[in-house]
Amino acid sequence: MAYELIPNGHVTSPTGFKAGVTSCGIKKGKDDLVILYSEAPTASAAVFTRNRAAAVPVMISREVFQLNNVRAVLINSGSANACTGEKGMADGKATQEKTARVLGLSASQVALASTGRIGELLPVESMLAGIERAAAGLRVDQGRRAAAAILTSDTTIKEIAVKTTIDGKTVTIGGMAKGSGMINPNMATMLSFVTTDGLVDTAFLKKTVSEVVDVSYNMITVDGDTSTNDTVMVLANGTAGNRLLDEHHPEKARFVEALLAVNMGLAMAIIKDGEGATKLVEAVTSGFASTLDARKAAKAVLNSIRVKTSLFAEDGYWGRIIGSLGNAGIDLEMDRMALELSNSRGQSVKVMEKGCPLHYEESRLEQVLKDGHIIITITAAMGEGTARGWGCDLSHDYVDISGFYRHHP
Amino acid sequence: MAYELIPNGHVTSPTGFKAGVTSCGIKKGKDDLVILYSEAPTASAAVFTRNRAAAVPVMISREVFQLNNVRAVLINSGSANACTGEKGMADGKATQEKTARVLGLSASQVALASTGRIGELLPVESMLAGIERAAAGLRVDQGRRAAAAILTSDTTIKEIAVKTTIDGKTVTIGGMAKGSGMINPNMATMLSFVTTDGLVDTAFLKKTVSEVVDVSYNMITVDGDTSTNDTVMVLANGTAGNRLLDEHHPEKARFVEALLAVNMGLAMAIIKDGEGATKLVEAVTSGFASTLDARKAAKAVLNSIRVKTSLFAEDGYWGRIIGSLGNAGIDLEMDRMALELSNSRGQSVKVMEKGCPLHYEESRLEQVLKDGHIIITITAAMGEGTARGWGCDLSHDYVDISGFYRHHP
Repeated sequence: MAYELIPNGHVTSPTGFKAGVTSCGIKKGKDDLVILYSEAPTASAAVFTRNRAAAVPVMISREVFQLNNVRAVLINSGSANACTGEKGMADGKATQEKTARVLGLSASQVALASTGRIGELLPVESMLAGIERAAAGLRVDQGRRAAAAILTSDTTIKEIAVKTTIDGKTVTIGGMAKGSGMINPNMATMLSFVTTDGLVDTAFLKKTVSEVVDVSYNMITVDGDTSTNDTVMVLANGTAGNRLLDEHHPEKARFVEALLAVNMGLAMAIIKDGEGATKLVEAVTSGFASTLDARKAAKAVLNSIRVKTSLFAEDGYWGRIIGSLGNAGIDLEMDRMALELSNSRGQSVKVMEKGCPLHYEESRLEQVLKDGHIIITITAAMGEGTARGWGCDLSHDYVDISGFYRHHP
Repeated sequence: MAYELIPNGHVTSPTGFKAGVTSCGIKKGKDDLVILYSEAPTASAAVFTRNRAAAVPVMISREVFQLNNVRAVLINSGSANACTGEKGMADGKATQEKTARVLGLSASQVALASTGRIGELLPVESMLAGIERAAAGLRVDQGRRAAAAILTSDTTIKEIAVKTTIDGKTVTIGGMAKGSGMINPNMATMLSFVTTDGLVDTAFLKKTVSEVVDVSYNMITVDGDTSTNDTVMVLANGTAGNRLLDEHHPEKARFVEALLAVNMGLAMAIIKDGEGATKLVEAVTSGFASTLDARKAAKAVLNSIRVKTSLFAEDGYWGRIIGSLGNAGIDLEMDRMALELSNSRGQSVKVMEKGCPLHYEESRLEQVLKDGHIIITITAAMGEGTARGWGCDLSHDYVDISGFYRHHP
């Protein structure tokens, strides 16, 4: 293995990172404000939502990351600061400036991230006081508390850390994320914060993060919506003592693999926390004309609510899978397509080959579907494009949780 | 009014159209096969699914409509003849040829349409016998029975006819449709058959049908999926005695209005039959950069399952509407946007203006949402583009009906 999992690892596991956590009353009686802080300057990369109604923290952080001098991130849960107009922008800047002031930084070194309800203003006064408390409480051991504070409708804390060796030095990568039930085709409705003490070249980090996001967060989907606030931030503070990791570094592959493991781990934790989901659904596509086509194919299947309700009902009507594939907006040669359904217990049934339905015992397919992890394998025999994506089924509970969320704890 | 509704009108209300209906055992004990027949040659126009896994009847009918010499349509319900490979194509052609033979036509004059399960072969022998019975039973008074025979998971028959006067002659337009619960962004999962005894120029008919489909079937959505079989067919047999309706005819607007009324009537009947829906949801968009943008905006809101579950729960969390709009793939200037929610009783609450949340009493918004018809009005203040679309909420019953359809009657 190129890396090793750190038991009970956190976003603060890499050296030089601290978190400060407090409650400022947005989520009644719960922690809802976090400062994530790097003691040393960082190289950084971020990916933001493509939603055109991007929230204030996204607009502000886009500029901050362009300057590549990030030292702290102010995160709040419970309110998204989206659709809040000029007042929302002024509020966001006030919290950014306050955070910079208490940490002795300039505002352009402080990124923002928010998650929660759209169309409501931040409780600025209470947040400004909260920022002082959070800054005063910055500690290495607050990683798990931070990972809990950023949650909204999530049912589980999502954090992970791994370590690897580069140039004989231990390089640690940690991360925390929130997200459940609004994961989308372009970028999940989620916040993800990844830290590393590795010394990394900025251009190399940006390229690597972009590739990692494409195969992790961008390949998970719960309900096809993109949020106004989706954000992945990666900060590398270079305190591990390795030589600069760039395209020419002989051990770059180890770092990329470890970074992928952290982000995949967080993405899988999000998909497994899908609102009201009873099954993990995996789509494996190969033989498509391009990687992009293979990704589109996987996501079209995973986003089809017809397919999702069929899987919840453990109904083997695979025609819906083909129907959803036909809507993926990609070229298909139906007479080359094959489709197989399998599960985590290794049971499988091939239902279609060369575009024709195959004969199989219905009871065997029923057995395959009676599992918590269903794998849909689609082979196009048109090219070299492969992809892998993850989604979930759609249950009664989803309707309850998504519609009647106010009545849930 | 440019037209008058015919009470109890059918697809066979225009002169020269007949239907023959029978059961060939696909839907146990129910009518499932229809021949729609024109005694005179027709001008025709059709719009087919954009699903890349298009069914056999779609592939065959595309060619038939290109020749513009349609005299009959063979329709079956219960089996889609999609994902059936070469055997499915041979089966489709066998039923097409049989229909032509018994009616004394050439195969290229017979279009096909199927609806039902994907990935199953047609019961060809039983259908060939059924075609003989249906042809022998061709009558003017079989319109309603035909409209019932084409249904699948529909709960209501969908048919309509109107009459207008062109050149002092009565011109009648009739139609029948099936569809519920799989209505999509590009073309509804639906079959629609429209007939008229008007004499209509083919180019004019094609252009008009395309425009009519764009504002009717293409603006209704239940779950965002496009089926493999979606089809709208319009046949004009010219037996009414009017002069040729084309771009230069002084009364062309009366015909267009009547044709729109028939197709809007069928589209509305489909959306009101959305699987497990408790509310009709209407999105009215204006001030967008283009008509296309306004349409995309309306459909993005109507297709968001977050918005749909909120409306089912009568929850006034309008932030989800803005979030879905941000995913419409169109340019938005958030600081110009306004959003209002209203209902069929004329109650309304403006919740956002110039991109900022407005103050309103929550109880008023709750009252607005306690209605079976909710109107979402979005004003972009960016241009002249307007659109109107219809969808429905997403309820527990949807999950039941869509997932456990086999256990429903």
